[in-house]
Formats: sequence, structure tokens, C-alpha cells
Amino acid sequence: MDTAAQTPAGTALHALDIATAVTRQDDGSFLGSTSPAYGNMVGPFGGVTAATLLQSVLMHPERLGEPVALTVNFAGPLADGEFAMVAEPVRTNRSTQHWIVRMLQGGETAATATVVTATRRDTWSATELAFPDVPAAADLARSPPIERAAWTRQYDTRFVRGGPDAGGAWTAGADAGAELDSVTQQWIRDEPARPLDFVSLAAICDAFYPRIFVRRPKWVPVGTVSLTTYFHVDAAMLAAVGDSAVLGVARALNFSNGYFDQTAEVWSRDGQLLATSHQVVYYKE
Amino acid sequence: MDTAAQTPAGTALHALDIATAVTRQDDGSFLGSTSPAYGNMVGPFGGVTAATLLQSVLMHPERLGEPVALTVNFAGPLADGEFAMVAEPVRTNRSTQHWIVRMLQGGETAATATVVTATRRDTWSATELAFPDVPAAADLARSPPIERAAWTRQYDTRFVRGGPDAGGAWTAGADAGAELDSVTQQWIRDEPARPLDFVSLAAICDAFYPRIFVRRPKWVPVGTVSLTTYFHVDAAMLAAVGDSAVLGVARALNFSNGYFDQTAEVWSRDGQLLATSHQVVYYKE
Repeated sequence: MDTAAQTPAGTALHALDIATAVTRQDDGSFLGSTSPAYGNMVGPFGGVTAATLLQSVLMHPERLGEPVALTVNFAGPLADGEFAMVAEPVRTNRSTQHWIVRMLQGGETAATATVVTATRRDTWSATELAFPDVPAAADLARSPPIERAAWTRQYDTRFVRGGPDAGGAWTAGADAGAELDSVTQQWIRDEPARPLDFVSLAAICDAFYPRIFVRRPKWVPVGTVSLTTYFHVDAAMLAAVGDSAVLGVARALNFSNGYFDQTAEVWSRDGQLLATSHQVVYYKE
Repeated sequence: MDTAAQTPAGTALHALDIATAVTRQDDGSFLGSTSPAYGNMVGPFGGVTAATLLQSVLMHPERLGEPVALTVNFAGPLADGEFAMVAEPVRTNRSTQHWIVRMLQGGETAATATVVTATRRDTWSATELAFPDVPAAADLARSPPIERAAWTRQYDTRFVRGGPDAGGAWTAGADAGAELDSVTQQWIRDEPARPLDFVSLAAICDAFYPRIFVRRPKWVPVGTVSLTTYFHVDAAMLAAVGDSAVLGVARALNFSNGYFDQTAEVWSRDGQLLATSHQVVYYKE
């Protein structure tokens, strides 16, 4: 048995490393546990669940290369406590590897993931999307955490636009101030600061408020059903970001009969596109 | 054993229905076969592979609801001929169901898919993305198929912008005319015309030329590694589209060290967003 989270003697582990720690069992499966620090209104924050599923691949002894694509399907509620993960390399090619991961709790599948890992080579590269014109994180105030969502305390989040109550309509209790769109721009970093890696980036890709709450000042139950993240950088490029805040941009394209989508980008402070991320979210009326 | 493709006596089956036909075996798995009509330069057109994986869920006797999310990972080359698919409902909730599908050929995993199906209810809905201002399909010429890619003959494709040799640079053999971006807008329908359904829509979501060929007039090997499609409509809404052409819009956000992404939307002629689709593609320099 070996544990994912390691730290120099005497240094306290970051809450994210505790939340995403996995222990390998003799049968090759991994054990993990939900973490109160990253609790959501119901169950754990999905971003940390996604990051933990990715962790099971990162810690797998047969892994080849680094993550390129991660898809997580949230199949059912995850209760507080332990869960198991089985990560299976279903195909290993020369430079790419394909994974299926299952997260199990109480004999039921709570989540699944597919992961593509790959070794990358330097090639012609170009970012077609433009880095948005936004104020620096230091020039914005930190948004107060949301009381009932513990995970929001684990991030330093500063909204450029599209934060909670962006249009003032939640406060006013009317539609009058509602945003005309669901676009959010936010600076975000782990709190306390932590060097960026694939695990924290995977979680940050899901650290946006549900788009429907930006668009409409009305509370409805929501839950992500499927989340896909594409990583555009390797570990060295991530390490260069250090523990700086990254810029997240998210928007919904469509809300239709109980499901809306979200498409998002995460940028480094100096304009490198680190990840693009997409999800489809259930909402109940 | 029952076959997916059915037709009134005497009516010829559409090539897409032949290509995506699956036969259920006694052990619950499905058999399918690649179709020369949808061949690509190497192996079959990935859109039809994705549609066939979806078909294995659509034809499964335990299926609940209609597709909301489909992720296909192209794990290895698929040779011409037969393949098997095992579709497993890993979790069934009240209104959603989660699937893992494996496509096997010669004892190896050629592709995997995860699918979320759900029953939808009428709710508040809104399309945030704007339908682009484009000429009607009837006012554009059909693009000639690409000789070495048989599947392109199975579609009537009319480019608004970003078609093959969009900037004239392929012809000119220089960078001079290269597009400054990788955006494509194309009207597309099955040829011959065929009423739209989840199977054909899943294939159409992958029926864009590789973005790198729009952006740069240089041939390099490419291959989709992971493809995710979100369906924003139910079967009745799809049926209302009939066999009209749909508008596909695609762009790359980033090209980086051997992998680029593509994000796409597919619209009905009257401006209904039918699907959004994302993929990450390997390219070799």
C-alpha cells in the first residue's frame, strides 16, 4: 500500500491533497474518502470527485504519459465516507493510453471516468482563443465563501463578472437585475495557495457556480451529470504556473428541458490556455 | 437476435442504417461491422463509429430515456470488418441512466464510450448562443466529396466558410491564403436525405474536417482521441427537423504539442440548437 499524498516531514498537507489522497489495495484498486473541507450542499464538491478519479490513474503503476482528456459521469449520490476506485488501462499504444475508472460505494457505481493519457512532443502550437481583457486578481476583492458549500472556502475566488448575485436580482428578489447571459470570469486559486498540478486543475475546471444561477435569480436543484476536461499543457508547463491564481471563463450555450451545458476555459495569468472544460448539468423546475 | 435497422418491405435501407446496424447476441453483446460507404483514409469515419456505439445503448433492452451525453474514446485502430460491443448500464436512477460501452475487435479494445440517457420534462428553456447569420443551404453549392475519404460522399455538405482550401493556400501551395482562424460553418445532411435521429446527429457532430487543415495548408496525420456530444433535444424535436440540412459550426480553441481541441454546435434550419460537441485530436508533425 502506498499513499498519494506525500509531504516533507513536519509540513502540513494541503486540504486538497488530503481530499484526493488514494491508497492502493492489494487487488490493485484504490481506496479514497470524501473530505468535509470539500463538502457541497449535498455530498462532496464534484470537482474534487473528478480530481480523485484522475488521481487513481495518476497513481496507477501502469500509467503512460500525462492526462489529455478526462470525462467524469456522476452516476449517483456519493455519501460522506470511504469509496473504492478501479482504474483499468483498457488500451496502451505507443504514445497514448486509454482508461476506464469506476468509483464504487456500498456496492453501487457512484461515478465513472474515462481518461486519455499521452506523452507529448514539442510541435507547432497556437492558441486561437484570445485571453480576455480583465483586471488583475490583485485588483479585485475576494468573494466571500458560500456558507452552505464548504468547498467554496477552499478557494480564493475573485469575480470579474458573473459572480453570485451578479445582477443584484437575488438580493432584490426580482428578475429586474438578472444577467442577460450566464458568462462568468473569475480568478481562482487554492486557499491556502498550492502549486498547480493536474489534480488541482481538474478540480478548478468544475469550480464555477451553476450557470443557471448566473442567468436567473431563482433557486432550483442542480447537479452535473457529465464533465469533460481537455488538458492543453504538460506537468512542466503547469509547474511554471506555480501557485498563482488562474482565470476561469464559463458560459452556458443552452438550457433545455432539464439539462443545460457549460463550456469553460482556464488560463494562466500570462495568457496560456491550460484547459478547456465542458459539462452537462441537470436542473429541476 | 434482433437487428437495429428495419425498413418497410421493398424499401432500400439507407447506407447509414446499414453502417450502424447492430445484432444482439445471446450473451447480450452486440455485433456490428464497418461499412465501406463510410470509410475514411485509414479505417472507418469516427462519426459512424460513435453513432454505432450509441446504437448499442439505443438498442439495449434495459435502456431508460434518450441520450443526453455521449463520450467516445478512440482507443486504437478499427480494422475493416466485424466488431463486438458490450453495453453495460452501470447505474439506473429514477430519470437518468449511466452506461459504459466497449468496442472490441480481435481481442483488443478499439473504442470505449460512456453514455448518459435520461427522461426529460418540459421546463424553462433558453438558448444563449445566437444562431449565426448565414445564407440558406439552397443558395450554396454542394462541396465535392474528397476522393480518398468515402464517407464524405455520404453527406451533402455546403460550406459557408472554412471549407477545404478555404484560403486558397492548399491550391497555391503557400501560407499566403491560409485562414486566420479555424472556424467552419457548414450546412450538412445525409446523402441521400434521411430523417434526423440521435444516430445520424451523433455522426454529423464529427463530420467536420480536422481544424488544423482549416487553419494551416499543410498535411499532417491526425486522429480524434476523445469526442463528447451533448444532445439538447428529444426524439420528437429531432423528428420535427425531418431530413432538412442542419448547420454545423466548429472551431479550435487551442493547438498544443500534438493535440488540438474542437468545439462545435449543430443547429436546425429554424435555429434550434440540437447538439454541442467537443473533441480532442492528435496531430503529428
